[in-house]
Parts: sequence; C-alpha cells; structure tokens
Amino acid sequence: MGLRTVEQYKTSLRDGRLVYFRGERVKDVTQHSVLGVAVNHAAIDYEIAHQPEYRDLAVSVDAATGQEYSRYFSIPTNAEDLVKRSELIETSTRLGRTLVVLIKEIGTDCLFALHLLSRRMDEELGTNYFARVRAIYEHCRSDDLAMAVAQTDVKGDRSRGPAEQEHPDYYVRVVDRQRDGIIVRGAKVHTSVTPNANELFVIPTRNLTAADADYALAFCIPLNTPGLKQIASPYGSGHDNSFTHPISSRHKMMETLTIFDDVFVPNERVFMNGEWQFAGALARTFVQFHRFTAISYKLPLLDLLIGSALLIAEQNGIARVSHVREKLTWLISYAETVRMLTKMAAMHCSLEDGIAIPDTAAVNIAKLHFASNYHEALMRVQDLTGGLLVTAPGEEDLRNPETGEYIDHYLRGAGGVSAEQRLRTINLISDLTTGDFGGYQSVLAIHAEGSLEAEKLTILREYDQARVKSYARWVAGDST
Amino acid sequence: MGLRTVEQYKTSLRDGRLVYFRGERVKDVTQHSVLGVAVNHAAIDYEIAHQPEYRDLAVSVDAATGQEYSRYFSIPTNAEDLVKRSELIETSTRLGRTLVVLIKEIGTDCLFALHLLSRRMDEELGTNYFARVRAIYEHCRSDDLAMAVAQTDVKGDRSRGPAEQEHPDYYVRVVDRQRDGIIVRGAKVHTSVTPNANELFVIPTRNLTAADADYALAFCIPLNTPGLKQIASPYGSGHDNSFTHPISSRHKMMETLTIFDDVFVPNERVFMNGEWQFAGALARTFVQFHRFTAISYKLPLLDLLIGSALLIAEQNGIARVSHVREKLTWLISYAETVRMLTKMAAMHCSLEDGIAIPDTAAVNIAKLHFASNYHEALMRVQDLTGGLLVTAPGEEDLRNPETGEYIDHYLRGAGGVSAEQRLRTINLISDLTTGDFGGYQSVLAIHAEGSLEAEKLTILREYDQARVKSYARWVAGDST
Amino acid sequence: MGLRTVEQYKTSLRDGRLVYFRGERVKDVTQHSVLGVAVNHAAIDYEIAHQPEYRDLAVSVDAATGQEYSRYFSIPTNAEDLVKRSELIETSTRLGRTLVVLIKEIGTDCLFALHLLSRRMDEELGTNYFARVRAIYEHCRSDDLAMAVAQTDVKGDRSRGPAEQEHPDYYVRVVDRQRDGIIVRGAKVHTSVTPNANELFVIPTRNLTAADADYALAFCIPLNTPGLKQIASPYGSGHDNSFTHPISSRHKMMETLTIFDDVFVPNERVFMNGEWQFAGALARTFVQFHRFTAISYKLPLLDLLIGSALLIAEQNGIARVSHVREKLTWLISYAETVRMLTKMAAMHCSLEDGIAIPDTAAVNIAKLHFASNYHEALMRVQDLTGGLLVTAPGEEDLRNPETGEYIDHYLRGAGGVSAEQRLRTINLISDLTTGDFGGYQSVLAIHAEGSLEAEKLTILREYDQARVKSYARWVAGDST
Amino acid sequence: MGLRTVEQYKTSLRDGRLVYFRGERVKDVTQHSVLGVAVNHAAIDYEIAHQPEYRDLAVSVDAATGQEYSRYFSIPTNAEDLVKRSELIETSTRLGRTLVVLIKEIGTDCLFALHLLSRRMDEELGTNYFARVRAIYEHCRSDDLAMAVAQTDVKGDRSRGPAEQEHPDYYVRVVDRQRDGIIVRGAKVHTSVTPNANELFVIPTRNLTAADADYALAFCIPLNTPGLKQIASPYGSGHDNSFTHPISSRHKMMETLTIFDDVFVPNERVFMNGEWQFAGALARTFVQFHRFTAISYKLPLLDLLIGSALLIAEQNGIARVSHVREKLTWLISYAETVRMLTKMAAMHCSLEDGIAIPDTAAVNIAKLHFASNYHEALMRVQDLTGGLLVTAPGEEDLRNPETGEYIDHYLRGAGGVSAEQRLRTINLISDLTTGDFGGYQSVLAIHAEGSLEAEKLTILREYDQARVKSYARWVAGDST
Repeated sequence: MGLRTVEQYKTSLRDGRLVYFRGERVKDVTQHSVLGVAVNHAAIDYEIAHQPEYRDLAVSVDAATGQEYSRYFSIPTNAEDLVKRSELIETSTRLGRTLVVLIKEIGTDCLFALHLLSRRMDEELGTNYFARVRAIYEHCRSDDLAMAVAQTDVKGDRSRGPAEQEHPDYYVRVVDRQRDGIIVRGAKVHTSVTPNANELFVIPTRNLTAADADYALAFCIPLNTPGLKQIASPYGSGHDNSFTHPISSRHKMMETLTIFDDVFVPNERVFMNGEWQFAGALARTFVQFHRFTAISYKLPLLDLLIGSALLIAEQNGIARVSHVREKLTWLISYAETVRMLTKMAAMHCSLEDGIAIPDTAAVNIAKLHFASNYHEALMRVQDLTGGLLVTAPGEEDLRNPETGEYIDHYLRGAGGVSAEQRLRTINLISDLTTGDFGGYQSVLAIHAEGSLEAEKLTILREYDQARVKSYARWVAGDST
Repeated sequence: MGLRTVEQYKTSLRDGRLVYFRGERVKDVTQHSVLGVAVNHAAIDYEIAHQPEYRDLAVSVDAATGQEYSRYFSIPTNAEDLVKRSELIETSTRLGRTLVVLIKEIGTDCLFALHLLSRRMDEELGTNYFARVRAIYEHCRSDDLAMAVAQTDVKGDRSRGPAEQEHPDYYVRVVDRQRDGIIVRGAKVHTSVTPNANELFVIPTRNLTAADADYALAFCIPLNTPGLKQIASPYGSGHDNSFTHPISSRHKMMETLTIFDDVFVPNERVFMNGEWQFAGALARTFVQFHRFTAISYKLPLLDLLIGSALLIAEQNGIARVSHVREKLTWLISYAETVRMLTKMAAMHCSLEDGIAIPDTAAVNIAKLHFASNYHEALMRVQDLTGGLLVTAPGEEDLRNPETGEYIDHYLRGAGGVSAEQRLRTINLISDLTTGDFGGYQSVLAIHAEGSLEAEKLTILREYDQARVKSYARWVAGDST
Repeated sequence: MGLRTVEQYKTSLRDGRLVYFRGERVKDVTQHSVLGVAVNHAAIDYEIAHQPEYRDLAVSVDAATGQEYSRYFSIPTNAEDLVKRSELIETSTRLGRTLVVLIKEIGTDCLFALHLLSRRMDEELGTNYFARVRAIYEHCRSDDLAMAVAQTDVKGDRSRGPAEQEHPDYYVRVVDRQRDGIIVRGAKVHTSVTPNANELFVIPTRNLTAADADYALAFCIPLNTPGLKQIASPYGSGHDNSFTHPISSRHKMMETLTIFDDVFVPNERVFMNGEWQFAGALARTFVQFHRFTAISYKLPLLDLLIGSALLIAEQNGIARVSHVREKLTWLISYAETVRMLTKMAAMHCSLEDGIAIPDTAAVNIAKLHFASNYHEALMRVQDLTGGLLVTAPGEEDLRNPETGEYIDHYLRGAGGVSAEQRLRTINLISDLTTGDFGGYQSVLAIHAEGSLEAEKLTILREYDQARVKSYARWVAGDST
Repeated sequence: MGLRTVEQYKTSLRDGRLVYFRGERVKDVTQHSVLGVAVNHAAIDYEIAHQPEYRDLAVSVDAATGQEYSRYFSIPTNAEDLVKRSELIETSTRLGRTLVVLIKEIGTDCLFALHLLSRRMDEELGTNYFARVRAIYEHCRSDDLAMAVAQTDVKGDRSRGPAEQEHPDYYVRVVDRQRDGIIVRGAKVHTSVTPNANELFVIPTRNLTAADADYALAFCIPLNTPGLKQIASPYGSGHDNSFTHPISSRHKMMETLTIFDDVFVPNERVFMNGEWQFAGALARTFVQFHRFTAISYKLPLLDLLIGSALLIAEQNGIARVSHVREKLTWLISYAETVRMLTKMAAMHCSLEDGIAIPDTAAVNIAKLHFASNYHEALMRVQDLTGGLLVTAPGEEDLRNPETGEYIDHYLRGAGGVSAEQRLRTINLISDLTTGDFGGYQSVLAIHAEGSLEAEKLTILREYDQARVKSYARWVAGDST
C-alpha cells in the first residue's frame, strides 16, 4: 500500500470501533469535536512523509524491494539509525507543538521488543512466535498503520501479584484457549492514541510467576475487534481558542480505559501465551525502547520552555537582571543535559540479534533527570512570566474596541512589543505550564513510560558495581 | 448596619459597575455564569458570621458601642489578636476548599497599613490623612463592606521608574488636582475580587522619587465610580462538573485589569497625594500585613495536599512502601514548617502606634519556604496518585450502565474502596494540581503578595547582620 | 557541694579511669595534649556559673533549700523553662566557638527521660525505679557532676535484633544478676565526653522484644568503675595553631568506643533491668529531649556560618553582587527557620507528669531541616570565600619578614582590611567547613542525636493524619 | 631527551628554586616531609609512561621523527584524540587515588590555548608569537618537562579592573620593557604544582581594557628564575598514617602564592606583551581546555564515592534497605551524568586551526553539574557510613592487644567482614569526605578551573537562543 495520505488514514478510522466519550458512544472519531483534534494531531505522522523538507528524515526505502515506508518502521541496526529515529521523533513532536504524535513511535517500540523476545522464546522454549511477529510487522509497515500499545494493567492492590487479587481480572488474562485462537478478558489503563490507531498491541506490564501463567500474554488486534471497548478520558478537552490556548486548541492525545470483554484473538496474532518467564523481559525491553522515544520527544518541550522564557524575559524588560539570567542558565543546563544524554543513549547503543538497543544508563538517567526537575523548571518559567499567566484579559477583550485600546495602551512590553504579542507569549506559557495541558505534561513527565521509581530501579540494577567496589577496596588498602 | 447577610451582600453588587468579560459587558455579576461563582465564593465571609460554630471566631464586639462587626476589621493590638485573625483567615479559606475568600482580608490589611502611614505622614508633613483613614475605616466596618485592593501597576519597562517610561500612564497617577478632589488615570493589574467588592483601595507599588510625585497616590472609591472599568480575566472559567472539578466548579476568584479612565476621587477619600517619600513605606507595610494573610490562607491548601496524598496512597495500596512514606514525610515537614512559622509570625509581632505587626523575618521566610517548594510538593502528590490524574473516565461514563460496570469492576482501590471513591480522590488531586485551578494555585504561590525575589530582598534587608559578624570576628580572633 | 569550680572539676577527673588513646593508656586526661583540650572545653559549663554576666542564665536556686545549682539540672515544667534551657545551651556553645559543651546537657536530657519512664514502669509493672532515679538525680545535681550518656550499641548486622546476632554481645546486656547488683557486658560507640565526665548513663538504643529482655537495661556508673574501658578516637587531634585553626585548636569533644568488660552495677544505680516493653519508649523519650538540646546548640554554628559569610563577602569586595546576596539570603532563611522552629518547640511543649516535653513535630522538623541542608550551606559559604580556604600561606609565612611583606601587600581585602584580618576570616571558614573540624560538624549534622531517617520516621508517625484526611474526603465529595 | 624516568624528574627539581613552607625556605623539595609527598605523587605521570599496561595510553610517537613522547603533549586534532586524552587524565588520577597529577595536564592545556591565540594575534596584529609558542612547546615536549600554570591574580578589590586598584600590583604586570626581555612584577594565587614543576606558564585571568595594557601578559619561565618566589600553603599537611588517611598520607598537591619580584623574562619566552584585546580570549581558551581536563580527572573521585558507598552499605548490612538504594541510585546518576557529558564534550568537539576544542556546552554543564551537587553527594555517602567516620579508634588501638581484641569483637561488619576491613572502608570515606583532604576536594569542586558563576555565564553566553526563541514565536502564533 505504501505511504498513506492523511485522508486514507482518516478513512481507516471509520471502522465501527466502540469508543465512549463522556457517557456517549462516538459515531465517528474523525468528526468528533474532541477526538477529531486528536485525529488531526496524529495525522502529522502521515503529513511529514509527503513534505519535501522532511522526506529524507521520515521515509526509508526497502533495499530489497525498493518500496518506500515510514522510517518509524526501520529497525535500528547501529548508532546512526537510532540518532535518525530520535531526530524523526523530535521533528514530528516539534510540529505537534511539543505534543508527541505517537501513533507510529510506540507501536514500533513494541515491535522491536517483540522481535527480540519472540526469537528468544523460540530458541529457549521451541515456540514459533518470531514468524508471527515478522508477519504482523510486515502488515503494519506495508499498510502504513497507526498503532497503539496497551501495557499498564489496572492492577488492583499493588502489593499483590495478578493471581493474588480480590478478583482475577485486575490484569488482562486468557480465559479460554481455543483451537484457532484465545479469548482474552481484562482492562488496561492509560492507553494512548487508541481511538485513532488501527492496531492495538497488548503486552505484560511486570514480572510474573508460574502461578500467573494466564496473565503472560502478548498479542495484536485491530481496534474494531468485537468485544474491544474504549472509554476515552475527557481530561483536557474543550479548549478551542488558539489565542489563549495556542497548543491545546490544536493538539490533543487521547487516553482510554481499554476493556477486553472476552475478545477473540486468532493464533497468528498471539506472541506470548503463558510463557511467564519472559513477561518481565518483554515489558522491560519495550520500555527500554520506549523511554528512548520519550527522551527524544521531550526535547521540543524543553526547547519551548527555554524559548518562551527567553522571549518573555525580553518582553518584560528583565533579560539583563541577574536572577533572571541565573534562572535562564538553569533551564538551559537542564534541557541540554537531557539532550546530550539522549544523543549518548543512541551513540552508546548495544547490539542484540542485530538490533541496536539504546544505552540503558543513558536512557534512564536522562528520563529521570527530565522528570525529577520538570516541576522546578515550570516554577522558573512561571516566575519569569508574571501573574498575567492567570489574570490576563481574553481575546474578545482585545478585539472589542471599547476595551482593546486600554489593553493596547497598558499591556505593551519592552522594546516596542505590542500588547498582543506579549499576551501571545504569556498565553503560550500559560497553556504550557498552568492549565489542563500544562498539568497533562507535568503528569506525563513523572508517569509516562514508567515511574520515577522504576527508572531508579533500572539505574541501580544495571550499574557495574564490581568495577567501583574493587577500586574502593584498592584505595582503602583492603587486600581481601 | 451591622453584619450583612449573603443576600444584602449580593444586592449591593448590582450597582451599575462596569465589568467586561470576554468582550462583553456583564449585566449583573451575581447572575453571571462565571462571575456568579466568585460571588457565591466570596459570600463565605458573610455566611460564617451567622453560623453558630464560627461566630466566636468571625465576630467582634465594639467595646464602646456594643455593636457587632466582622472580626476582619478588628485592628490587632497583640499576638493573640494576630493568632485569631490568622485562624479566621484559615477557617474561611478551609470553607472555600483552599481558595481564599479575600474580600475582607485584603482590604483590612490595607486599612491597617493606612492607619500607620497616615499617622506618620500627618506627624512628619503636617497632612491630615489619619482622620480620613479613620472615617473610611468606620464606613467599611459599620457597613460590613467587601473590599478590593489595587496595587500592582502595569509597569511598562520594568527597569525604569514611573516618570521615565515611554508614556506617562504605566503607573496610576494624578492628572488633575481640583478644589474638592483629584482626577486619576492609569491601570492596575491582578486586582483580585474587584468584580464582587464594594470598595476599591488604591495604593502605590514601589519606592518613588521626587520626580514621581504625581504617582504617589492612595485612595478609596466605590466600584461603580464613573470612569472605573474592569476587564475580568477568563482564566479558569467553565468548569462546572463537581465530580471532575470538586473545587473549581464551586469556588472562583476573579482578577481584573482595572482601568482608571480619568476617575474623580473626592478629597475625603484621598490618603496620599504627592507624598512620594512615603510611597515605598506604604507599599511595604501593606505587603507585610498581606503576606501574613497569605501564609495564613495557604494552610488549608497545604493540609489538603497532605490529606489527599495520604488518602490516595491508601486507596492505591502503597501507603507502607518506603519511598511513599519518604514523600509523605517531606510533605508534612514542608507544610508544618509553614504552619509553625506562621504562628511564630503572630507571636513575635512588634508594636507600632498600638498596632501589632507580624514579625517580618517569620512572615517572609514562611512565604518563601511555601513558594519555593510548592511545585516540588505538587510533583510528589502527583507521583503518589498516578496517571489516572489525566486519563480517568468522566462522570457520565461512571453513570452510564454500559460503561459504569466496567469502571466499577476495574478501577476499585485497595481496602474495599469503590471506583467512585477512588476517582473522587484522584479528581480532587487533579483539580488541585493539574488543571486551571492547579495552575492558578501554582502561579499564586510564586507571584501573589510579591515575588520570590521581593521576599528574599526583605529577608536580607531586615536581618541583624551586626550580631553575627561580631561573633564571627571574635571567633576568628580578629580584634580590629 | 554546690557549684563546682573549674579546678574542682579537673581534679575529679584524676580518678584512675581507664582511657586509651592511639594505643596507649592515658595517665591523666587533664594533662594530655589532646584530651586536655577537651577538658578545658568542657570546663566552660563550670566557668559560666561563676561569671556575673551569665549567672542568671546558668544558675538556679532550689526553692526549698535555697541552694544554688546549675540550671541544666532544672527540670522544665513549662514553656519558659524550656526557652531558658535552650538559651543556656546556646550560650555555652557560643562560648565554645560553636562546639557544644555537652557534659551537663546530655546527662540531664537522660535524667528527664528517666524521671518519666521510671514512674511509668513503677505504675505499670510495680517496680521501684523512680526513687532510684530521684536519688541519682540529687547526687548529680548537688555534686554538680559532669555526665556522659552511652546509648548507641555497636549493632553488628543492622537487619537483626540483639538476640539474633552472630554473637550475643553486639548490644549491651546483663550477663549475671546478683543479690546486690548486675554484671554488664558489651560496648557502645560514639559516646561523647566520656573521658572527661564523672558519671556515665547507659540506656537502650531501640525497641526490644521479649527475646531481648537481657538487653533491656538502664543504669549509671562512675567513669572509674572497674571493667569500664574507653578507647578514645584520635579523629581531629593535633591542630594547635590558633591562626589557621581558630576553633579546633581551642575546643574539642572526645568520643569513645566504651567497653563494658563484665562491669558490676549496684542495684541502686539500675533503672531498667529486663523491662523490654519500655526500652523503646526510654530511647525515644531521651532522644526527644536530646534533639531539642541539639537544635539549641546548632544555633551558634548557624550564626557563625552567616556571620563569616557576611564578613568574607565584604572583605572580598563582593557584598553587593546579586548572586552573593542570593546566597546570603539563603543562609539566613536556613538558619532562622531552625531558630524559629526551636523556639516553637519550647513554646508548644506538652506536659507529662509535670515535666515539659518539647513539641515533637517542631523538634524533629527543625533537626531535619538543619541536617538535610547543612552540606549545601557549607557549599555556599565556601563559594563566597574562595580558593584561599585551602591554598593560603601559614602563620609563620606571615610572621617571617622575608615573606610577610608580600602577603601584606598582595592579600589585603576590600575596604582597607589587612591581609592578616582577611586570612583570619578565611582560616575561620576553613576550620569551620573544610578540615577535621568542618568534617566533624558535617558528620554530626547528619548522625548525632539520630539519623535523618529516624527523624523522618518520627515526623510521619506523630502527625495527625485523621484531621487532614477527613478534610480531603470532604473536599472530594466522598461521603463514605 | 625522550621520556624521563622518575629519578631524572626528581633530580631536575633540585635547581635552587626559592620555596617557603611555614616560614622556612625549603632546601630540597624532593626530600621535604610534605613537599616530598607531592613530588612522589607527581611522579605518577613519569611512571606510567614506563609501565607496559599504560604505555599505549601514555605514550605517543612523533610521526616525523619516530621519537616517543608523553601523550599529554599530543595536540588533539579530532574527537578520538580528546577521548584518549581524557582517558589518560582519568587513568593517572585513578593511580593518584582520586588526586589529579596535573604536572603535564595543565601545562598542555595552556600550550594548546597559546597555539590558537598566538596564531590569531600574529594574523590580526602582525606579531610573531606563534613561532615562540612552537619553540617552547618543542622544548617542553622533547625534554618531557613538568609544567605549572599561574593564572589567578590576587585581584584586590574585585569590583575594579587592574588599573583601577588601590595599588598597581594586584594583577601581574610589566614594569619595564628592555631590549632583550621584560621585567615582571606581581603575584598569582592558587598556583598548583609549582614547587615540583620545571616550567611556569603565566597568562591573564580576565578581559582587559586599553588602560590595562601592561597587564596583558603571557610568558613562560623556569621555576628557578631569579626573583620568582613561592610561598607554599601548609593546608592539609601532616597526615602520615595510611590506615586513617589512605589517600592523603600518600598523595598531595601543593599550591603556592607565587611572587614575581621584578623577574626578567627573555623575549623568546614572551607570548603576549600588551595585546590587551586578546587577554580575555586567551584566558577563556585555556579554561575551556582546562575544564575538560577537570571533568576528566573528577571521574575517579566520583567512582570512589560510589564504590565506597556500595562497600560500606554492604559492610553495615543495609544494602537492601530502600532509602539506602535510593541514595546509591542518586550517586550513580550524578556520577554517570558527569561521565557521559565528558564523553560528549570530546565527541562534539569543534575544530579551529586544526586543533580539536571540547564542546563548550558539554564541558561547562558537566562541570557545573559536578560542582553544584558535590556537597550533596558527600552528605549521602556520610549518611550511609555512620558516625564512626569521626569516632573510630586509631590504628594503634587496633594493633595494641589490650584494646585490639575488643575492636575485633565489636566493630565487625555484616557478612563476615573483619573490623579492620570495615574500619579501612570507613577511614577511606573519612579521608575522602571529612578531613583536610575531603575539605580540599570540596573546595576544588567549586573553585578550581573557574567558579560556579563563571560556568553559568559561559553556558548562557554560548547557547543558541535564536533557535528556541523562533520556535516559541511560531508556537505562540506571533508572526512578527
């Protein structure tokens, strides 16, 4: 099929899928006042493949067939591939005004992990998953599909495993195994882009034990599969004024509570079915790729924090003030550290079965650095901007001549900046840091792609302790 | 007149005042869908005076006349008075679900400062302001009026003084002095509760020089005074669902850009008119009282951060986890430090002309401690809550049986907590930390009642450096 | 006997006690080149009782007998008593150039706790300890004795209780119970002022179980008791130049590994003997008083950090620079927060059996605030001072005319400050922040009187969670 | 001459140089009890060139002549060269037990900067400095010399330039220009390794104006040049016990106040003589190379902090405790961030006149990250270790059988670790974090190679602001 157009993409979403939004079933996600914004946002990943300036970055060519396909599907084999993938993710997010597009990023992260794990399962357990993974990969790539990944189970009591819960459905599980497929029940939360994807990948969220074998599951289904029900979150909807909400009036990502109401999955779309020993490894390998995606897509957000802080500092006439410069320097150091560690994650990659995996330490330290300082970054940007973040007049006041002339007269900025320009900068920062969208970004910072604690765990676990302990023993004169 | 009822208060706001909201003039602020919420919120200060449980705290009795009046008007004369005032402010804010009521707090902060400064001006310059201040104080107190204070000028280029700007109107000024009054022009920003107050006090925002004499102005006018125009900010309006927005659907404060379009102020309502030497002192004395109000009204907000964090930790089943306990302890230490410093600010007050002034160091250190750690507090609370902060289903989904049963089944919390209960806790935290209201509180934290930098300046300036330098010299053996 | 003189105190230390220092037995602690410095330092607590300017603060009078005694022994019965006690501790530490004197502070902290716990044990278990505590209290007070407290056991494997260790001696225990007393074996670490105290109190360090009954022990013995052996730490000894080490050349505290080599303790000096149920409570009650002592004695240290930072900023000519002022403000806010919380701990005390106990929250939050920011404070002070902290010439270079004239010429400070003056300030800061003494203070900050983690635990445990959770439930609209 | 031996190096230091230590002239720096330690430490840079395992790293071969020389002198021409240089610096510092060797590092940093700046001066001003720089470079490289760099002037009043001071000597200057050379007067502080180097480079420390032309000076002289006088700092001397001070008893760096008492410098050794326009650029270019050296030599120190923290956590039996793991993770993230940014600084180098310059952003952000978190790192390591850091018995107590058996019995660690092993770990951490050496490292962290503020300034100045401001304008919808 080749690279799809935006229209082809939209058409594909009118497929009878079952999506609820604020208690009502959505007829057509592409036409819905809220979900439609998410569809248009996601379309960026289709648009750039057709725009000359991004074509080189966004499109790969199959060496064997000469066929073009989206670079997202290109399986990285070396540092350079990872650098390019990172640039592509950064670029589409930049066009998304700091909101990641995700409909190809996350799915390919999952496909890369499935490549690695299916081969390992086949080798160690004699299963035949790799061929299925290859087939679904070819399908998604050649049809240029949009993909979502459902990983986080609803979990119930977090101190207990799947099999020890109050009821058995807190983690997605197999309830029946039939000749040609399996029946799946359960629910996943925080599934992003589900209402506007074509395929949904489902993978485990944690280590499992033998008792949890029915929860060791990985598969992929189309989003109109019978029994699959999405309850979309209303969070952050309803901002349609591009003056006060320059980002969130144009860009949106949907998350759903995704219900598997005894869904049938045919065997050829099942990639794990009881192999509990590999559940944790699959979860972690996906996350490893996905955190690299994450730090790549955070870069435009960080650029925008600095850029808007620099702009407003000038427009407020305080750019030369010492404490202002201190705050700007902090923001730059913060952002550039994440950027350089992201680059390092690509450059220090390791190879497994010919697939380049971003460096674990770099990825997790970058992610943790980003996440644990994000709220402090917001504080600094808000500090430089001023109270107008939450007290500014509306666009209608600016346009109404009765009030507009006062606004023009009184809210001008330094250096001949008009009140409108200054209010645009302020509204941008307000959208970015204070309202629904600002809150969304701040929650994503600490929860998306795994929590702060998960990142810390990985950093400690992967560190080469022997090297530094042996050095410490030598310096201490401990010859034991 | 005595203590007004809520109805009397509301009636008083239908007085022809000129308020714009999103480009349109507001007919009746009490009936407006957004401003009406703010009116109802402000009414708390009238309600509690009539509620038996709060009466002792909320009502004072004039020793001379036996007449009852709102305790807010009670001029503090000792530590105990300040402790009571702080408790009253905390209590009304608690009823306001962490949003300060402010319609009596801020006006009395200003009146206390005017008492002190008018007497000083009279003594040093031979003016006759004190009597006028007393008269307006009696007027506001006996009529139980709601008051706003306009202090922050629009400022233009912040590196220049009022008289050095591109145009002369960046600070409010006298443009004409007539026999019976003055004509005032200019604009103030971030004026809180203006649309639903009765009287507006206007005071300077900074130190002035002789060249700025026309900007040295303090006065008070009714909010329907001709030429007075309010442009109310649309920020944070439109949240009417109490399930998803339990705070902001019920409570609101309005801020305005307040225009003085050649407003006439009669002499008896003018309290400073050219005495530039006292402009800075008046600004600072008001802020000193007002920051004490601020740290008092922040206490319910801090309590709610801890309370909701404790609740969600239990409902998520993670309350015994080590890193969770660490975060809870941090929140408690943070909040209790502010609380104890606030108490100390009252107890270490100083007396001036018989008026008790809260301790400068305690007030400013408490405020700075609150403000500079607030965003980090949000991070910790969000961290404990999880991604459902921004991905939860809506109330309609819970009520719709088609979807509600799934939500019931899958989103329950630990210890038998229903999905609805857990979602209520999560939505509370979402309202408090992520959306418009969360953003509003975070911007208030660092900008209201003066910036972080202003607080730092005060702390350094007021510190007794001689004491510690002399100790250092002695220890160093420096006998010079 | 009444208030002892310094000479009486010193004489009392020549009593045959067994103290080792760097492998050799110390003949006379008062004459020893290192331990003698500690004796002289401790003598401050005797000197001030005889100095007119401190007499009121340092001396109490027994209402019944009219006899004078050291105020340290005054059992606090209200907030004012605690305020005075705090001032006395602060004052003696100030004379000790930021090093706490401790020989009466810590012992009375222990005595107060024993008063409370012995009465509880007597009431609940029918023991007869209170009378013994009263007798030892009278003895210490009337003879004006110096006291040490041994609390921290050596602990072995910290994840196990006393009875579960590799050998039974990792916690001090009873090995024999005889008619007239008990035989005690074990060791305590970090015992301060042991070499120059008269009496040693021994108490448990943690909660115990029934299996640990032999470890539930409290008693008091003279420091020359047979079998009691001290191994004093050589850390920080040998700094005798008051120019380069203005504090540590004059002031020193000794810590010992304290060995109980089958020591006999007569019954009348035993205050707990198997009552494991009260071990934790005694440990915690002592710590509660002792942490209040700690935050009181930290105040001169904090003052000196600020004072020396202000001095060197002036002498370096950078006092008006913006980032310097920022750092000074940070230091002031840090120190004053501790000071105000310390005051609050006294003022919010609770009463138990007529004894005033400092407020738990205030004490622990103050201690934690002090400890967790101390290293950052050092960084700021060092930052303002400059590299001369570790590269300055010695006093001999200043005195040698061949080199002294260069130093005079080149190392002068701003505002006519001589090189000697400036070097004195720098050396003070060097002694305070970089060398053995600086390191000693930094380790004390985080380990003395319990670790950071112990303080956090107490803060969380003592907090009134119900109050804030109920508020959160109300705001959330959760009516369950 | 080729690669010198340690003996040849030591012999070269007996050359009549004038060094004062604690008021006395040092006869032979190699035999002195304190300076001799520094000589032995510096000898590491000579030893490794002869050790087979380090040879490849430490020795380069001249492609033209086939002659071997120390790799330090190898002028970097690409990323790989910088990576190797960084590894060499890291390796020698590792052998120096975290203390940088510096006698070749700093001098070559200076030579690289002089290469670049002399060529620019020659081109723009027609001077002939490049040839002189090449000659001195050949001299140092072929004779394998040890070099010091004197940059920091004594500065007097820091708010004034060199020509505006109270006396003209606060910055090093030319006092006479003669036919064959110049006469130089002034003093530099914090000059490292001066007593044990062969050549001393002198360069400016700041931007200069035309009025400061006499201060625009760069030259190189042997350390026995008449009129050159060194006053060495006594800081940190006298630790000779390798049990209690495993690092500082074996390794030392000397700093001097370096006096230029009308020193004659022949023309061929002068590289700047009045060209004030280039003073700032030379200072900054040197610092750029030198900060790269700095972040390279900090890596073993960071490794040792982690390594010793891991060891003591195990030996204390707390390695599995949650807050301990949190602290270890923090340390790892801190250290690895610096390591990865250091690598990035090499890999993102820029080329100028064929010389590879480390990336400015990476270098300065790495250095700032290191420096601004160092004290917090110390706190964490001390926290994990415990109070024995400053209360442990001495080696003599361990060796004395009377006391040693108690120590053996009571101070053992978890997992069968002997008391001696555990004390060695604790003493290592004590040396590293608390005493003179710990203090020295902490002051170096924030002052060596430029202050925190200097690093911040560079980060802000070098950042590409236009890129992010233009992005912010686009997102804001500001089309101006």
